[in-house]
Amino acid sequence: MRVLGVDPGLTRCGVGIVDGAVGSPLSLVEVGVILTPVDAALEQRLLELDQQLSQWINMWKPDVVAVERVFSQHNVRTVMGTGQAAGVALLLAAKAGIPVMMHTPSEVKASVTGNGRANKAQVAMMVQKILNLDSIPKPVDATDALALAICNVWRGGGNARLTQAVAAEQSRLKKLRAR
Amino acid sequence: MRVLGVDPGLTRCGVGIVDGAVGSPLSLVEVGVILTPVDAALEQRLLELDQQLSQWINMWKPDVVAVERVFSQHNVRTVMGTGQAAGVALLLAAKAGIPVMMHTPSEVKASVTGNGRANKAQVAMMVQKILNLDSIPKPVDATDALALAICNVWRGGGNARLTQAVAAEQSRLKKLRAR
Repeated sequence: MRVLGVDPGLTRCGVGIVDGAVGSPLSLVEVGVILTPVDAALEQRLLELDQQLSQWINMWKPDVVAVERVFSQHNVRTVMGTGQAAGVALLLAAKAGIPVMMHTPSEVKASVTGNGRANKAQVAMMVQKILNLDSIPKPVDATDALALAICNVWRGGGNARLTQAVAAEQSRLKKLRAR
Repeated sequence: MRVLGVDPGLTRCGVGIVDGAVGSPLSLVEVGVILTPVDAALEQRLLELDQQLSQWINMWKPDVVAVERVFSQHNVRTVMGTGQAAGVALLLAAKAGIPVMMHTPSEVKASVTGNGRANKAQVAMMVQKILNLDSIPKPVDATDALALAICNVWRGGGNARLTQAVAAEQSRLKKLRAR
């Protein structure tokens, strides 16, 4: 399974791709950060992010897109941009027919480090270990995106299968009722 | 000038199109509400909104898209969806190369009623008067979108011309420097 992790942001959007499956080693495919100019108009920044993220999806053809779930409670000043950046990622995945999963920051931390309140350094260190890398990927935005992708491989698979099973059952019941 | 006003929302997104210019009568072109299913996954709702809004833009070819500026202060629970719906509208406009303007709710109210704290009923009544309609357009979401479009004709034109003039001047200076 190939997962594209997106740590959404308008100024810096972390993206990381991981190949792997539950119970087998995971490997790093690609990692990076998409930047959009702070002084540009909002719609131009969203367009820039859309175009760049679209290239990532077209080039690497992920099986799943994992996006960090954004809460409106913290970082009130930047949360709108973060939410809109997440929206761009969700919309692109939906357009491409790629399943989407969302994970909260604490789910990601717990999944990767065993501690839902781990700090960035701990997450980065575990990402390096899990992906068997010589050094910690930089910048931190990128590490978080990889952690998100790893979390999705480990947690998401089951959820995705569950969602698919529920959808299949609902579809079956719908057909039965329509008879 | 044809303006598409978008009152963003994930559950209900108001859309209203107005033709007109400063100093001449305004006319209603089309008005409606785009609904997305509350029980659908977020990415599917964004996709649905994107597709329907895209049809509005393709069909009516607005010169400007006016979007209500969303603040993260109020309605914390729904603000993320509202912001992402606004993001979909902004992104669509940017992709289509249509200029975007954003107005705050109080700018819209002040522009249409003369009072930045007017209530919905007052806004709706003035929209009916300004567009010379037999009755108040329903539902209220649609009225707000029309108010946004009217506000943009009256306030936005100058701003848009100013923005264009500044951009042209900057481009001219850049060329001069590049010589």
